[in-house]
Amino acid sequence: MDLPDLATQMADLGARAKAASALLSQTSGAQRAAAVTAMAAALRAAAPVILAANDSDMARATELSPSLRDRLKLTPERLEGVAKGLDEIAALPDPLGAVLEEWHQPNGLHFQKIRVPLGVIGIIYESRPNVTADAGALCVKSGNAVILRGGSDSFASSGAILTALRAGLTAAGLPEDCVQAVPTPDRAAVGLLLTMTDTLDVVIPRGGKSLIARVAADSRVPVLKHLDGNCHTYIHSAADLDKARRVVLNAKLRRTGVCGATESLLFDAAIVQSHAAPILKDLLDAGCVVRADAALEALDPRIEPATEADWGTEYLEAIVSAKVVSGVDAAIEHINRYGSHHTEAILTEDARAAAAFLAGVDSAIVLHNASTQFADGGEFGFGAEIGISTGKLHARGPVGAQHLTSIKYLVRGNGTVRAG
Amino acid sequence: MDLPDLATQMADLGARAKAASALLSQTSGAQRAAAVTAMAAALRAAAPVILAANDSDMARATELSPSLRDRLKLTPERLEGVAKGLDEIAALPDPLGAVLEEWHQPNGLHFQKIRVPLGVIGIIYESRPNVTADAGALCVKSGNAVILRGGSDSFASSGAILTALRAGLTAAGLPEDCVQAVPTPDRAAVGLLLTMTDTLDVVIPRGGKSLIARVAADSRVPVLKHLDGNCHTYIHSAADLDKARRVVLNAKLRRTGVCGATESLLFDAAIVQSHAAPILKDLLDAGCVVRADAALEALDPRIEPATEADWGTEYLEAIVSAKVVSGVDAAIEHINRYGSHHTEAILTEDARAAAAFLAGVDSAIVLHNASTQFADGGEFGFGAEIGISTGKLHARGPVGAQHLTSIKYLVRGNGTVRAG
Repeated sequence: MDLPDLATQMADLGARAKAASALLSQTSGAQRAAAVTAMAAALRAAAPVILAANDSDMARATELSPSLRDRLKLTPERLEGVAKGLDEIAALPDPLGAVLEEWHQPNGLHFQKIRVPLGVIGIIYESRPNVTADAGALCVKSGNAVILRGGSDSFASSGAILTALRAGLTAAGLPEDCVQAVPTPDRAAVGLLLTMTDTLDVVIPRGGKSLIARVAADSRVPVLKHLDGNCHTYIHSAADLDKARRVVLNAKLRRTGVCGATESLLFDAAIVQSHAAPILKDLLDAGCVVRADAALEALDPRIEPATEADWGTEYLEAIVSAKVVSGVDAAIEHINRYGSHHTEAILTEDARAAAAFLAGVDSAIVLHNASTQFADGGEFGFGAEIGISTGKLHARGPVGAQHLTSIKYLVRGNGTVRAG
Repeated sequence: MDLPDLATQMADLGARAKAASALLSQTSGAQRAAAVTAMAAALRAAAPVILAANDSDMARATELSPSLRDRLKLTPERLEGVAKGLDEIAALPDPLGAVLEEWHQPNGLHFQKIRVPLGVIGIIYESRPNVTADAGALCVKSGNAVILRGGSDSFASSGAILTALRAGLTAAGLPEDCVQAVPTPDRAAVGLLLTMTDTLDVVIPRGGKSLIARVAADSRVPVLKHLDGNCHTYIHSAADLDKARRVVLNAKLRRTGVCGATESLLFDAAIVQSHAAPILKDLLDAGCVVRADAALEALDPRIEPATEADWGTEYLEAIVSAKVVSGVDAAIEHINRYGSHHTEAILTEDARAAAAFLAGVDSAIVLHNASTQFADGGEFGFGAEIGISTGKLHARGPVGAQHLTSIKYLVRGNGTVRAG
């Protein structure tokens, strides 16, 4: 598709999204929940078509790594899981309409602060086709129209899922243009999307570091930042060894490909022999690569030397970096310098050390005696999530339907004028 | 100053701001309140120096319009007003630390959502030197370090105010680098500021349309948008005439230079003779220019014809545009198309029309039977404000100290690991 044609099509998408958004913003919570339920039903009805489209994506994706092929792959069970996820989104409390605050001023004016949709959201993501359904449903649930741009690998699967979602919207009596996608996997479409400031209220990149860096650098539309998760677990000198072994193994290896997986371990100098040795042995025995500083390297011949680059790396694999620090202040300093402000944990039985860590670490989520793998909207009780925001503006931490909203002030008077 | 030198100085400012922010984020509400009180005291003590600096700014600013000269001018009374404003900011409730939400999950994890500072804020503004003091105090109150870039016209005044604020911080035992300013009024400093993504968490432009457009277009740092206020008052067919005359006169003419001043009037067709005629006569008699569509132009020979450009114009002067609409839906459509999503009012005794207008108008503040001039943080009860945000992300409407914050999740377990 040449660029003028694409630009025309993108402008048309934008106009349709705005029109759908205006209608959607006036619907009731019950209408939006029913629409998400209908979207789930339509997904189930279209399962054969969606799976066939996924087969064609898989057939084309021969050059992908096994783990990326696995992310792309849909099965009847996985698709049913996606539909169930939509049913759960439908059942969430309505994120809109609530009066958040309400007060009178002495001049008689009555103020209400209420929740309203953001408007039109752009979501740019990579190979997982299920994001098409999750993101579409979360946006409809929260009263927002959405323009999706999925990965080129999943173009056919996402297209088939989109057709089903739109059929569900129509069946529920809502405009099908509440959920749209860019017409081509061409990167030029992303470039255009990032300039649509009159249409898009926010753009959310969900994917790898290079995608997010590109969106952050190029976007003229406000971005809800989802950076990498270079998550740390700090084993303090007063850590309980049994808890620490259990938590570290879970934090690193439960799933290595999720953004809440621990990528770096910090050990207090006093517990190198007592704690670091058994914990690193657990990891090595489980097949994890350990890259450590000189103080830890001597503990086991299997440990590799770490380089400066390791401290800033999100592996998303069975690799962990490990370092000795001189105490809680040094741990905080290391994390705030090398981390990505996502999720960090301290393991300790010392309440003062825990309090200092929780206050001093500048991350969206800070845990005490728990696995960093809890960095997930579902585990927080938010239902499905778009991702984990590492920015400090608007939303920080897991972003669910309730965070895809803005506010508005309603002010009521009786011919009230301002003095002075 | 040449660019390499300036870049070095800006990087140094940034590093100092980050260090000050880390300390400031660990202070108590009492410490920050005491610091703002000390800043107010230091302003009063430095009054002769500040007024002398302002005299030199005024002597240079011979080419400015009378209204801009008036905005630049400081008098002993105005400076005392600024100091009083700081005392009021000191007395506001602490915006930080509060536990916003708190819950347990079935697995025993305990969650807290707390308020934390944003970090380092950049504020770019124009000729009013008092913004230096207000913005500095609001940032310190909310635990944020700030880098200020004032207008070149007020460079000497702002510099003298800054020196006083920093003396106040030192007297209160906080780092003086909590409040800094760029070293030169040179526009290149703004360009550098907008690229400091490693330092600045947010940049807030406060000023005219061209400044804000430039910041929005060039900034790589997230922007808290303060657009123009093209505010509307819609006089519905069921408006009470006495209230409407009183409110419109106040909304347009109480102060014409504030962002909440009404710039455009919409009248229902049914009340052109009964309401539009006396209301426009009031305005014309008070010296206001009226630019209206053909249906209204015939009401008074003093009325000028409006052009399409008038519907989108924020005059900030004694000029108003006026137009006939066919009802509440047409009014909403006109406002959402031509307005700036700032503040709009409906005047009516019909509760259903009011509800439709409040729900349908996509603006930060929507009023019923009250003057748009209430668009002000003080009138909302928020204390001093940085401005009115017209964006939908993070903060919408008046931005006070409580809005210069982010959140953080604290999660406490007991060796808790994630299943599955």
